[in-house]
Amino acid sequence: MVNLILVSHSEKLATGLKELLAEMAPDTPILLAAGLEDGSIGTDASRIEASFDQLNDDGLVLTDIGSATMNAELALELYSGDRTIQFVESPLVEGAFLAAVLSGQSKSLTEVVDGLKKEFA
Amino acid sequence: MVNLILVSHSEKLATGLKELLAEMAPDTPILLAAGLEDGSIGTDASRIEASFDQLNDDGLVLTDIGSATMNAELALELYSGDRTIQFVESPLVEGAFLAAVLSGQSKSLTEVVDGLKKEFA
Repeated sequence: MVNLILVSHSEKLATGLKELLAEMAPDTPILLAAGLEDGSIGTDASRIEASFDQLNDDGLVLTDIGSATMNAELALELYSGDRTIQFVESPLVEGAFLAAVLSGQSKSLTEVVDGLKKEFA
Repeated sequence: MVNLILVSHSEKLATGLKELLAEMAPDTPILLAAGLEDGSIGTDASRIEASFDQLNDDGLVLTDIGSATMNAELALELYSGDRTIQFVESPLVEGAFLAAVLSGQSKSLTEVVDGLKKEFA
């Protein structure tokens, strides 16, 4: 199943979103790359890249605002592992909800990405 | 200044978002109506309506997914106070970020709503 990687400036926000998704799509694996190492607000490319090591299947990256996207793209460039990972531009909460549901229906990464693009284009 | 009311199924998500907004637009008042009374996942029209009593100016309501919007609209119907409160359909995190910035620039409720509609229509 497609794994979601939630990239947010706020660890609390991402943790809350993960809990929400767990109710809606309990089987979809959700990884977090949120906040800075000391728990403060921000995003960090190396923390995002480190989260990719926990993938157990293809991954979809979703981001919140501003530099989160830049750091996610940098993390994707740095990544040298074997998983296929894509970033898609969509609203964080609403996109993660749709993606989690589609992944829970065993859709492929391409199908999940297409579903998001169709909804949020 | 326009107050934001964040309606989310998850109290943790909303609290994290409030912390994020506080860094980006520290002067904008942010109210939360998130989760159920026992802290579990959900939204509740009476809790949303109760949050309206804390408004110190006009209010803008933003919601996450599904029944959050229905309950926010019900709360607006139930509200009998003097503040002008509007709901606008936008992505929660991205919409709240833009709204907080516009409110922080002392834009009126109408201007904030127009700004969101223009960005997310």
